Amino acid sequence: VDELFYAPTLPQGDFTLDAIEAHHCMRVKRHKIGDRIQVFDGVGGLYEAEIVSADKATCTFRVQARKQADEPVVQVHVGVAPPKNPSRFEWLVEKLVEVGVSRITPISCQRSERARLNTDRLRRIVIEAAKQSGKLWLPTLDEMIPFESVLITESKARFIAHLGSESQALKDVYNGEETALVLIGPEGDFTGDELQTAKDSGCKQVTLGQHRLRTETAALVACHTINLLHD
Amino acid sequence: VDELFYAPTLPQGDFTLDAIEAHHCMRVKRHKIGDRIQVFDGVGGLYEAEIVSADKATCTFRVQARKQADEPVVQVHVGVAPPKNPSRFEWLVEKLVEVGVSRITPISCQRSERARLNTDRLRRIVIEAAKQSGKLWLPTLDEMIPFESVLITESKARFIAHLGSESQALKDVYNGEETALVLIGPEGDFTGDELQTAKDSGCKQVTLGQHRLRTETAALVACHTINLLHD
Repeated sequence: VDELFYAPTLPQGDFTLDAIEAHHCMRVKRHKIGDRIQVFDGVGGLYEAEIVSADKATCTFRVQARKQADEPVVQVHVGVAPPKNPSRFEWLVEKLVEVGVSRITPISCQRSERARLNTDRLRRIVIEAAKQSGKLWLPTLDEMIPFESVLITESKARFIAHLGSESQALKDVYNGEETALVLIGPEGDFTGDELQTAKDSGCKQVTLGQHRLRTETAALVACHTINLLHD
Repeated sequence: VDELFYAPTLPQGDFTLDAIEAHHCMRVKRHKIGDRIQVFDGVGGLYEAEIVSADKATCTFRVQARKQADEPVVQVHVGVAPPKNPSRFEWLVEKLVEVGVSRITPISCQRSERARLNTDRLRRIVIEAAKQSGKLWLPTLDEMIPFESVLITESKARFIAHLGSESQALKDVYNGEETALVLIGPEGDFTGDELQTAKDSGCKQVTLGQHRLRTETAALVACHTINLLHD
């Protein structure tokens, strides 16, 4: 997959790329009518397609062939309090997609710093990172929700990162479960109340090594650990 | 370690912080004469010190007590072709320090993109990341050297990342060696010649997962894999 365009929910027939993808296809990559392109739908479908009509701002293509990729076996759901600096959260999103994540939920915690999230921009980052690393299943990026709400989601294994004497190393308590939720708090850490709520809902308290990690590093390291140990 | 200043090669007596650290101490943290501060020397020494004279631009301190931290058991040396975008390399340096690296060598490869490296700025990033994550041994950041030159360094385990059929997963071939060199190529990958040269000097050809990773993601993932599997 050298060059890939994204068009969600493709059935059959003729389809159009959205404005951003059409611009990329026609202006940046300078494709013409009759060119073959590859399009993915974000839920495992990879389409061979031919451009049937286009100008500099639009692109309609006809599907010629379709392959379906299996859904990733391990589904890591990362719930993370975004750092104040938006660029740190943007790179986290890019890196989580590359390393392998199924869902990213920004969570607001009692000690959260005020973070402005541009969800549209973050979703573009998800798409670009998925293309770049050849991932045909697009991870979900949620809107920010309160910490407690992320606990409602289902996952066989559930972990909350916290540097405390009760914590065990994530690599020692992750047993290869196919669905895992990992919670990473703000720089000021989770409160005692939040920790208790998480433990009451089945989360194990884990550490990610002996050293303090920034929020975004902790989230990436946790996600990579689960991917590495599962594979 | 809540707040830490860096002063390399501390013997005994009275010492001064360099201009950047003095500014941070006196202007940002608003310390005064008589205040107790903590200073580290980057080679494991952590000093309790008292400020004995200072103005807004300088800071002299007297060492009261000294502790020595052991050198990290695992020493990961990352040789990496810097991406063209300097901010991607800067974050890689920060994240390698957090995750645990002993030496970072920017390498120039046949397919390297032209990267401008501001080594002074990168060394500041190393210091700040070491402070932030409480690492008292400061990793080395080298000037850029040709790919072949990094092969001269000694390491018990040596790996070169390459997506090829001969490659084995890093996690399967890393056997817990205490010193490891990992080589990560540019976006365009290593050439066949470079791969051969590396293999001739004892490098094993490894992959870091099934998906393409950006250069900086590959370097971070490789370094984290070795730290995780060694601990």
